[in-house]
Amino acid sequence: MKPFFYFLFISLFFLKSNSLTAQQASNTFPSSLSKGPADRFIGNVWVQYFVNDTTSDFLSSKVIFEPNARSNWHVHIGRQIIFAIEGTGFYKEKGKAIRILNKGDVVIIEPGTIHSHGSSKTNSFTQAVMMNIVNRKDATTWLNPVKEEEL
Amino acid sequence: MKPFFYFLFISLFFLKSNSLTAQQASNTFPSSLSKGPADRFIGNVWVQYFVNDTTSDFLSSKVIFEPNARSNWHVHIGRQIIFAIEGTGFYKEKGKAIRILNKGDVVIIEPGTIHSHGSSKTNSFTQAVMMNIVNRKDATTWLNPVKEEEL
Repeated sequence: MKPFFYFLFISLFFLKSNSLTAQQASNTFPSSLSKGPADRFIGNVWVQYFVNDTTSDFLSSKVIFEPNARSNWHVHIGRQIIFAIEGTGFYKEKGKAIRILNKGDVVIIEPGTIHSHGSSKTNSFTQAVMMNIVNRKDATTWLNPVKEEEL
Repeated sequence: MKPFFYFLFISLFFLKSNSLTAQQASNTFPSSLSKGPADRFIGNVWVQYFVNDTTSDFLSSKVIFEPNARSNWHVHIGRQIIFAIEGTGFYKEKGKAIRILNKGDVVIIEPGTIHSHGSSKTNSFTQAVMMNIVNRKDATTWLNPVKEEEL
């Protein structure tokens, strides 16, 4: 067999494997960490998507807050669930008492609730997130930064 | 160049790409669907892992129950959160009333609770799952199948 045919055969084989992998993963991907933008977060915040399933209009992600970081006030159209998996953080609904979150704590955030997530002043905090109704462009509305005295 | 060297060169190249992909995805991977084993489930059940994070001892997955399928009774050491994302399903704690689950419903399952998840008789059901304390081999203990009359 000519060398060219070895090359062709092996290349086609691997191209096929790669395209199958891409197809299986179309709606299901682990993304790398991306930085939470400064117009939505105070301090350093990193987001990684576990899955963004457009078919069932659902996402799951991980959010890492470095110490003394927090989201702006924001509100979701869907229901969001927070699961504290590392460090010390908080959940705060506008006008309500702050809730300190430790590993294993769960927060269910009903649609339309204005809220903020963040870390403690000295510890980082990692939360896992599940949320539905995520396909619409207005799925999340971002509001003002959360002032120190509002916490 | 000899045919053998074409083969060797191309094979090594693809081996290298594949091992890099595996490394990047070590703790964060979307797995393909795998079938729930018959010693743990009645009917056809499919599991896909979004992430299995050994560092923070946490996993997130999706479970698809075809119609009239259910898990055996089982119990987790950690806390588990169920988020209903498609179809009609149920959550049942041993000795308590069955709870029907529709899209958007949330169930928090406290550590040590004997329970079962499943679909309705005629509809499939998809749930997203978050769970902590998953690294230990005894993280989940599987028990007997759930009989029709127990539902």
